[in-house]
Amino acid sequence: MRKLRQTINQVFEASGKYQRAGHILDVILISIIMINVVAIVLESVHSIATEYYSEFLILELVSVAIFSAEYLIRAWTCVDRVKYASMNCSNTQKRIRYILSPLAIIDLIAILPSLLMFFFAIDLRFLRVLRLLRVFKLTRYSRAMQLLLQAFIDESSSLLAAFFIMSVLLILASCGIYLLEHDIQPDKFGSIPAAMWWAMATLTTVGYGDVVPITPIGKLFGGVITLVSMGMVAIPTGLLASSFSEQIRKRRQLFEDATHEKITDGKLTDEQMHHLEELRYKLGLSKLEANKAIKAELNKRSSHLFCRHCGKRP
Amino acid sequence: MRKLRQTINQVFEASGKYQRAGHILDVILISIIMINVVAIVLESVHSIATEYYSEFLILELVSVAIFSAEYLIRAWTCVDRVKYASMNCSNTQKRIRYILSPLAIIDLIAILPSLLMFFFAIDLRFLRVLRLLRVFKLTRYSRAMQLLLQAFIDESSSLLAAFFIMSVLLILASCGIYLLEHDIQPDKFGSIPAAMWWAMATLTTVGYGDVVPITPIGKLFGGVITLVSMGMVAIPTGLLASSFSEQIRKRRQLFEDATHEKITDGKLTDEQMHHLEELRYKLGLSKLEANKAIKAELNKRSSHLFCRHCGKRP
Amino acid sequence: MRKLRQTINQVFEASGKYQRAGHILDVILISIIMINVVAIVLESVHSIATEYYSEFLILELVSVAIFSAEYLIRAWTCVDRVKYASMNCSNTQKRIRYILSPLAIIDLIAILPSLLMFFFAIDLRFLRVLRLLRVFKLTRYSRAMQLLLQAFIDESSSLLAAFFIMSVLLILASCGIYLLEHDIQPDKFGSIPAAMWWAMATLTTVGYGDVVPITPIGKLFGGVITLVSMGMVAIPTGLLASSFSEQIRKRRQLFEDATHEKITDGKLTDEQMHHLEELRYKLGLSKLEANKAIKAELNKRSSHLFCRHCGKRP
Amino acid sequence: MRKLRQTINQVFEASGKYQRAGHILDVILISIIMINVVAIVLESVHSIATEYYSEFLILELVSVAIFSAEYLIRAWTCVDRVKYASMNCSNTQKRIRYILSPLAIIDLIAILPSLLMFFFAIDLRFLRVLRLLRVFKLTRYSRAMQLLLQAFIDESSSLLAAFFIMSVLLILASCGIYLLEHDIQPDKFGSIPAAMWWAMATLTTVGYGDVVPITPIGKLFGGVITLVSMGMVAIPTGLLASSFSEQIRKRRQLFEDATHEKITDGKLTDEQMHHLEELRYKLGLSKLEANKAIKAELNKRSSHLFCRHCGKRP
Repeated sequence: MRKLRQTINQVFEASGKYQRAGHILDVILISIIMINVVAIVLESVHSIATEYYSEFLILELVSVAIFSAEYLIRAWTCVDRVKYASMNCSNTQKRIRYILSPLAIIDLIAILPSLLMFFFAIDLRFLRVLRLLRVFKLTRYSRAMQLLLQAFIDESSSLLAAFFIMSVLLILASCGIYLLEHDIQPDKFGSIPAAMWWAMATLTTVGYGDVVPITPIGKLFGGVITLVSMGMVAIPTGLLASSFSEQIRKRRQLFEDATHEKITDGKLTDEQMHHLEELRYKLGLSKLEANKAIKAELNKRSSHLFCRHCGKRP
Repeated sequence: MRKLRQTINQVFEASGKYQRAGHILDVILISIIMINVVAIVLESVHSIATEYYSEFLILELVSVAIFSAEYLIRAWTCVDRVKYASMNCSNTQKRIRYILSPLAIIDLIAILPSLLMFFFAIDLRFLRVLRLLRVFKLTRYSRAMQLLLQAFIDESSSLLAAFFIMSVLLILASCGIYLLEHDIQPDKFGSIPAAMWWAMATLTTVGYGDVVPITPIGKLFGGVITLVSMGMVAIPTGLLASSFSEQIRKRRQLFEDATHEKITDGKLTDEQMHHLEELRYKLGLSKLEANKAIKAELNKRSSHLFCRHCGKRP
Repeated sequence: MRKLRQTINQVFEASGKYQRAGHILDVILISIIMINVVAIVLESVHSIATEYYSEFLILELVSVAIFSAEYLIRAWTCVDRVKYASMNCSNTQKRIRYILSPLAIIDLIAILPSLLMFFFAIDLRFLRVLRLLRVFKLTRYSRAMQLLLQAFIDESSSLLAAFFIMSVLLILASCGIYLLEHDIQPDKFGSIPAAMWWAMATLTTVGYGDVVPITPIGKLFGGVITLVSMGMVAIPTGLLASSFSEQIRKRRQLFEDATHEKITDGKLTDEQMHHLEELRYKLGLSKLEANKAIKAELNKRSSHLFCRHCGKRP
Repeated sequence: MRKLRQTINQVFEASGKYQRAGHILDVILISIIMINVVAIVLESVHSIATEYYSEFLILELVSVAIFSAEYLIRAWTCVDRVKYASMNCSNTQKRIRYILSPLAIIDLIAILPSLLMFFFAIDLRFLRVLRLLRVFKLTRYSRAMQLLLQAFIDESSSLLAAFFIMSVLLILASCGIYLLEHDIQPDKFGSIPAAMWWAMATLTTVGYGDVVPITPIGKLFGGVITLVSMGMVAIPTGLLASSFSEQIRKRRQLFEDATHEKITDGKLTDEQMHHLEELRYKLGLSKLEANKAIKAELNKRSSHLFCRHCGKRP
């Protein structure tokens, strides 16, 4: 039993000799998720929903069965995962910890609406659409996306500040246009919350054009706000651009530091090479760049092996 | 009396043993400001304003009382603030200086419209909306925003130049579309100022669509202007992106320089550590980065303490 | 015959003594491609197409003849190209390889629709418009564009992740607006795919405004999505900005490394200079920058030729 | 006479002891240009033009007189300018060179339309509007704008490539939407040039919304194009962002190199300091940054004055 659990865990983790099987499982699960999302989106079209009623039902039943099985298996085998195996607590505690982890909660959310519909016969359109949250199950599979989200988290304080500036400007813009256009267009700028719709569309440069100022002074004010919007759009872009640059620099630095630590005697064993290769993959660096860093480190080492002045080892 | 003033100042400054009390006070004041802004925005909706008339009035009275008290207390205790305490002038002079500082003026603006309304019975919609300027009181509390605004100030000359280029293009675009569409759409492109509304919406990529060229040659010209708009939007974004990158680099440099100065004997006392930690917080650097800079500096020092060749201090 | 083939190849490659002739040929071919594109675009205007019927026909015949000739000549002479000359296989195999290369396929696509029209008398509007793919023949001539596309390829994993985030947000936005506006505007938000049109226009900040939410709660949700769109637009821009910065850094590094390798004895021969100049052009570096890198390298070398302390070579 | 010419030149150049007078002259000329631009814009409003007819005429006469005088004086005194004074040719040749320089041509364009109107009694609206080109006279006064334009020139090859990619996408987008929507909306997508209006507005994210696809397949295609537009907008922004970063780096480098050259003996004379200060201003660096570079250079020098190993000067 324990043997089986460990094997299944290795398949799910795609580690050891089950790497290939794990990758195939991933591809299958990703495909099922994507088919599900497309199906739920199409199901919202009334004509398609009625015509293919039974097909959608079968797909839903099969998918929920698979996702439920996946959820239970993951909860069962989680105790063998590297992360949890080293924890010093009982299997039940490990399982509870896993079930409360973000990825497990996402997995639960993916099946919950359907289980509610099946077992409690609740059938609201709201619940049907909630099944779309299944799309979040994909986060498990994308490393690049996790790195991308990291940039948002790194810049969170600056982005929050940008959001705050945006809010202040939003309030000022909607309050200004409300004062200027309130009497002429009471249906469109009748209150500050109503004016916010225009301010929002303008400050983000979306510019629907369903609501626009019509008085000359209102247009002048609107023109100033469009100008401000350019600065507004520039802030998050600038922040992320510099954050992405920083991330690239940091990862390169991290790799160089790791290389520096690994290479202590001017040589690089196969095992060290393997470790560095793993790190390189984890950091998303190109092979070219990694090789260069290693070569530079080796050169530095060899040139320091003997002192240039006295010929002795330092 | 003086003792009390100093204690209150420490609470407001969140320094010394009143750090915790100060933070609680901050949270309370921030909450009041935000409740106020939401209330004023909602009050502009006619139906809500009439239904909750008394509630809004009470909130306003209480808020103005609190803000007025805050203003007076700050003006009274400002003489004990680190910044003013070291000044070589009388308390009255210090208070005048404080009252003329930007933050104090913002505090005054936040209560002035309401005081006018209460005491002089002036009740204009204009004045009511002006109370929204209370939102600026929040600037006091956001460090990240102050750093963000710094980027704008650092790039002010470039941003002004970008604004100038924008103005020139705006004039050329509106003058061109005026010449081309004036005869066909005299109501929309009747004069250059009128044509500027279109030019503004286009050059900032807002694109309302309420005014568009309709002649083929006007559309061709309009198409060229949309292309130009991409370059236009790119300038402030590019400037801020490079400015943010610069800021990150500069702050890291500043921290490294400070580390270099603090660590003079290859060791780091607790007090020095505390100073660096404060600087790190002020510069908005991550702990990881700060620790690395300190470690690198310590390493450098220790490797320079004794010459590797002759064993003597260099 | 072989001599002629080699000569023609040198003209097409613009190498050796036929560099000038090759450049003239390039200009002629670029001009023909551009004239063709403009003609096909204009031909879609019904009045122009009927008036200049014969002119368009002649241009088409001549162009197809030239492009066909170019295609055949390139396929014939490709065996002498540097890239293929060194391959260890028969001429036929080389030609097959060339024909299957992207640039050759583009050349084929440029003439295929017309050949179908001429020889099989198929005359669909679809085929006529397909001739516009000729514009891709220009890729052959732009080095800067190839470098630009490289940035996209370098960031492909991150851009894919951004695309994935975008998809998730698109699904959530359209699903949300569908729930909120479905009952009020069944013609515009009748299904999730229909709601996607609005979500797409909003998340990319295009904002057509043909479909907008009208309920207060729908507008609130819409406002949140416009805010999210700013972050959305910021991701690819930030990625490309940091990628472009990286590319510039990498190319400069590459040039410095090459300089380091070429200059081994503190001197720079004419041939080495020529190689570096070629590399500089290939990497798109400015002459100023290249000269500085070379000078810096030469300085470093000369200062290392003799040890400053003992006068001996290190 | 020559003395007077030199004095006037110094005033116009704001050099020597006439620096102050020169700055005042600059402010006066900038003010006149701005007043002119505002006046010409307002003159296009019919009601204003008729009411203030004589005022506009007087302003125009005075302005043209001043600009003409400025043009003639600049042409007369240009021979004393630093740039031309060192040239080895006759005064007439110098004046011809100056008259053909971009800034002189802009000055001529600023007065030409009015001269034509006054002397040849040609009074076209076209000519009237052309007077707006006076705004270009301001380029002379903005250093930051010249630096900004430099970034565009530095990236010209990349921006051209981006423009080329944009053109290709524009052709493909308009050709696709033409095929898909031509039959349903013949008035809006009747030909490829007509479809380009939509493609242009979409690819630049302006999104007027006056022309939108209405068929499901057309909307799908349109959605793809909106996605592509995000990449499209990202290219110029990314290019400029990395170019601005480069420029900052280069200028800092240039200043450091200059510092390195100036400081040859570990000391810095007043004259050298003055030169560096001038360079700092020209490069638009902050004083803080400049001082740091100088200090770093001085430190480096002093630490190299004596060899760490043997105590001798190297």
